[in-house]
Amino acid sequence: MTSHGRRKGESPAPVGAFLRIHLDTGFSIGPGKIALLEQIDATGSLSQAARVLGMSYRRAWTLLDALNSGRWGPATTTSVGGSGGGGAALTDFGRKLIRLYRDIESNVLSLSRSKVKAAL
Amino acid sequence: MTSHGRRKGESPAPVGAFLRIHLDTGFSIGPGKIALLEQIDATGSLSQAARVLGMSYRRAWTLLDALNSGRWGPATTTSVGGSGGGGAALTDFGRKLIRLYRDIESNVLSLSRSKVKAAL
Repeated sequence: MTSHGRRKGESPAPVGAFLRIHLDTGFSIGPGKIALLEQIDATGSLSQAARVLGMSYRRAWTLLDALNSGRWGPATTTSVGGSGGGGAALTDFGRKLIRLYRDIESNVLSLSRSKVKAAL
Repeated sequence: MTSHGRRKGESPAPVGAFLRIHLDTGFSIGPGKIALLEQIDATGSLSQAARVLGMSYRRAWTLLDALNSGRWGPATTTSVGGSGGGGAALTDFGRKLIRLYRDIESNVLSLSRSKVKAAL
């Protein structure tokens, strides 16, 4: 981080946001869980999703366990065995969480950028 | 956290959000820094603000140091000595940060609530 050394006239970094949404007591979605769901969808496997994200398997498992414990039902299903070993797939609820978070996130980003631009 | 034990028919917890906004490389505002600025404004003192928030003086000092290192100038000024000892006060920029964050935060909360309600 070298922000303090910025010289006058250099253009500022674009405004960004970190957002976690609490949907219910003990049930939240943030960038880590949503990226994990997206990678499970892309790879069909929790361990491959974790690898792509540079996340430990233990952490990925903990995040997924939380995502599958909400009152709306699980976000993923798992299949055991088969020729390629077990796999993981998203439920409709899992897909809904991704769409919901990415939708809110993009709105928050444009909102933040325009408010910051107007205020500073 | 007892979310997993919710019984059917119980009303859900209200939707909440955690938001941190990155204004520049290495310069961000989130709930901790903004609450600190508000308490400095209310108490006129960094140590009293930290006490009100249950924050260590060291942590409060670190957050304030970051808030005073942005390219827009400091968020607070300090006065040394005087009959009541040194004090801290907000600059115009400090007040602007509070208004900006609280404004974006309340927009994000209502946006999240309506999107969650529509999706789940």
